Amino acid sequence: MQTLRALTVLLSAGLASIALADAHDQVRADPARMQTRIDALAGFGANPEGGVSRVAFSDADIEGRQWLKREMVKLGLVVRTDTAGNIIGRRPGSDSSLPVILFGSHIDSVPGGGNYDGQVGVVGALEVISLLNDYDISTRHPLEVVSFTDEEGGLTGSRALIGKLTDAAMETMSNSGYSIREGIARVGGDPERIEESAVDPKSLKAFLELHIEQGAFLHEDEVQIGVVEGIVGIRWWQITVNGVANHGGTTPMNRRTDALVSAAELVLAVNHIANSMEGRQVATVGRIEAFPGAPNVIPGKVEMYLEIRDLDATKMQQVFDAVQAAAADLSKQYGTRFDFAEIDTASPPAPTDPAVRDLIAVTAEKLGYSYRRMPSGAGHDAQDLATITPTGMIFVPSVGGISHSPREFTSAEDMARGASVLLHSILAIDGAR
Amino acid sequence: MQTLRALTVLLSAGLASIALADAHDQVRADPARMQTRIDALAGFGANPEGGVSRVAFSDADIEGRQWLKREMVKLGLVVRTDTAGNIIGRRPGSDSSLPVILFGSHIDSVPGGGNYDGQVGVVGALEVISLLNDYDISTRHPLEVVSFTDEEGGLTGSRALIGKLTDAAMETMSNSGYSIREGIARVGGDPERIEESAVDPKSLKAFLELHIEQGAFLHEDEVQIGVVEGIVGIRWWQITVNGVANHGGTTPMNRRTDALVSAAELVLAVNHIANSMEGRQVATVGRIEAFPGAPNVIPGKVEMYLEIRDLDATKMQQVFDAVQAAAADLSKQYGTRFDFAEIDTASPPAPTDPAVRDLIAVTAEKLGYSYRRMPSGAGHDAQDLATITPTGMIFVPSVGGISHSPREFTSAEDMARGASVLLHSILAIDGAR
Repeated sequence: MQTLRALTVLLSAGLASIALADAHDQVRADPARMQTRIDALAGFGANPEGGVSRVAFSDADIEGRQWLKREMVKLGLVVRTDTAGNIIGRRPGSDSSLPVILFGSHIDSVPGGGNYDGQVGVVGALEVISLLNDYDISTRHPLEVVSFTDEEGGLTGSRALIGKLTDAAMETMSNSGYSIREGIARVGGDPERIEESAVDPKSLKAFLELHIEQGAFLHEDEVQIGVVEGIVGIRWWQITVNGVANHGGTTPMNRRTDALVSAAELVLAVNHIANSMEGRQVATVGRIEAFPGAPNVIPGKVEMYLEIRDLDATKMQQVFDAVQAAAADLSKQYGTRFDFAEIDTASPPAPTDPAVRDLIAVTAEKLGYSYRRMPSGAGHDAQDLATITPTGMIFVPSVGGISHSPREFTSAEDMARGASVLLHSILAIDGAR
Repeated sequence: MQTLRALTVLLSAGLASIALADAHDQVRADPARMQTRIDALAGFGANPEGGVSRVAFSDADIEGRQWLKREMVKLGLVVRTDTAGNIIGRRPGSDSSLPVILFGSHIDSVPGGGNYDGQVGVVGALEVISLLNDYDISTRHPLEVVSFTDEEGGLTGSRALIGKLTDAAMETMSNSGYSIREGIARVGGDPERIEESAVDPKSLKAFLELHIEQGAFLHEDEVQIGVVEGIVGIRWWQITVNGVANHGGTTPMNRRTDALVSAAELVLAVNHIANSMEGRQVATVGRIEAFPGAPNVIPGKVEMYLEIRDLDATKMQQVFDAVQAAAADLSKQYGTRFDFAEIDTASPPAPTDPAVRDLIAVTAEKLGYSYRRMPSGAGHDAQDLATITPTGMIFVPSVGGISHSPREFTSAEDMARGASVLLHSILAIDGAR
């Protein structure tokens, strides 16, 4: 009805063909409707702090999934659950031979999580469908809204969608108390036929994910839209520092080979290296233990973990090389030995598609929103999809950069701006009308 | 018989009264006999690495104690076990109204311990009795050989002897799997009457303890005897470093308040402060933990333990003050907060008796042994005895300074030199003959 009204006005000015495009350009997401859906979702697994504990495969997750399927049905989508438990709602396009434009995120949370991580992307996808319905817009390509299974537990659903969910991963115990295999069965998937959830890349036109930033850049710098350049790669090392354990009382200061003193030097070196190189790389020592660990024994060994993240694999290697060089110097200075063992959890940088990225930026600009190109420091389902189809990600501000916490917050206006960019990016990808 | 032979020779030179003293001055401990007793003790709780795991109250400890009591009886001592389980063997003096000269050490070990820590002092005390018997030397004061209960678990026996073993300490779980209370009962003590093990200070003339150094000074510098100036005081603090936990991927380097970076700075400051002040103070961070402790989370909190030891309580406080000042500077630099909580396990410095100390030094010199005055960095039963009676400690070299390890080693010749100093110090304390 609204579309028709707008069209009538514009037709009266004799600008029909341009008007149709212009009419769609006026379409904006509805903050109130998005907030209503966020609030509805917040009821499933609500925690006392005002967030949700809706870990994948829990009863709360199952209730949230049921709500989501009902919403999808109400919007006229054809809903299916794949063998990985991913919920997919389809809206046909005018040409069923064209590949699908896929978009969505996840509704599972970390334990003690908030109401925005993942949820904004799913509610944003529902909002896109609502708008298309409201304005009676049909697309050439079929559209599919997806809510991925167990994002927080290891990108389980998207990993299955790209055919990379391993048996080992399925045996992992999830935070719900069920193994991922058991969990998939609980939510209506079929772990025995998991390979059937893998999609043919040719069946996809593109994937888009709207998500909260989970960092403070957009909020602090008052930027409305983040155009994600990619999901940073992650590498982990276990570092063992070997010194000589000795009696803390009888060993004079100048006769010690204290592994913790060397380890402390390396912690500072890691921080200094990541801070002083050009770029946005980060390096963290988040875990440390001294052995034997008694207050009266000079540590003979320290184990610690190093994580390096960046969008550029070469830069990640440069940071690590610099850390190793610092360790070699410390080794000479202190007579300690540093062993580095890379842990097999690395994920390579996942750049988004340059064309999709530019299209999102142009769309944000057209809509009059401020935007910034930026990496995602956190992992997302989009990093899996990026390996099989042109992928883009849209960030909206997180107040204070708070994430994985009941205190995470994104305003309804910011959510709506994100959903508007999502809609118009989809329409642009859908192409010539 | 040997005494008589020597005496005959000297009498024939008409130097009877001097000769008697001189004859005793020739008496030296027998390295082979001491080694035989060390080897016998090594059979109780032998571990595969060649040391012993004879933790107090274990079956091995009980077997070792039975062996010791048999040895004492063979030497003609009157053996008793006090209510704390301390084994005491008495050799009467010529004047039973005089106070006791007490000497000994302990035969319990740490888990995975060696054959010398404690054992040298007990075997040395047995050697003194053997020599007195061999040379038919009687003393004016009664002599008592003591083997203290559970030295390694907290100076349990000597603490009881000075009337300071608390109920709380008795409830502590020992490495044997028994509480100290249960353990005391197991070894023939009576925990319900523990106060009866407290001795009247007036009943003691002095306490002497022979012990391995457990450090490398004597061995590396080729000094034969350590004249212990006292047992260093020990203070412990738990230090909490408070930063801000955050996502290791999405938080840029320049927006972090990483508790571990500040903690690492403090570890280095502790090391630098203890190293750069004049004196022999030591300071150790032996235990550290970062929270939440995930490799991908910037630590929001670090807990670590600081230990400071010195013979001078004022110096200990100076070191701590300097550490606190360094923390205050770091707090300003990094925006972190340091909380220091002193742990109630402090033991004050326990200086040995100056007169006893000098007497040991003179004795070592007379016997032609090189010696050095030095603190004990480790705790010993002597630190308890020092609070109630004039106390002295004699150190012999530990090869490589290795201690609390199957690899700890002291040569039979070094043990014998220590026992000779112990004998002649006792005779000197016994005084006018």
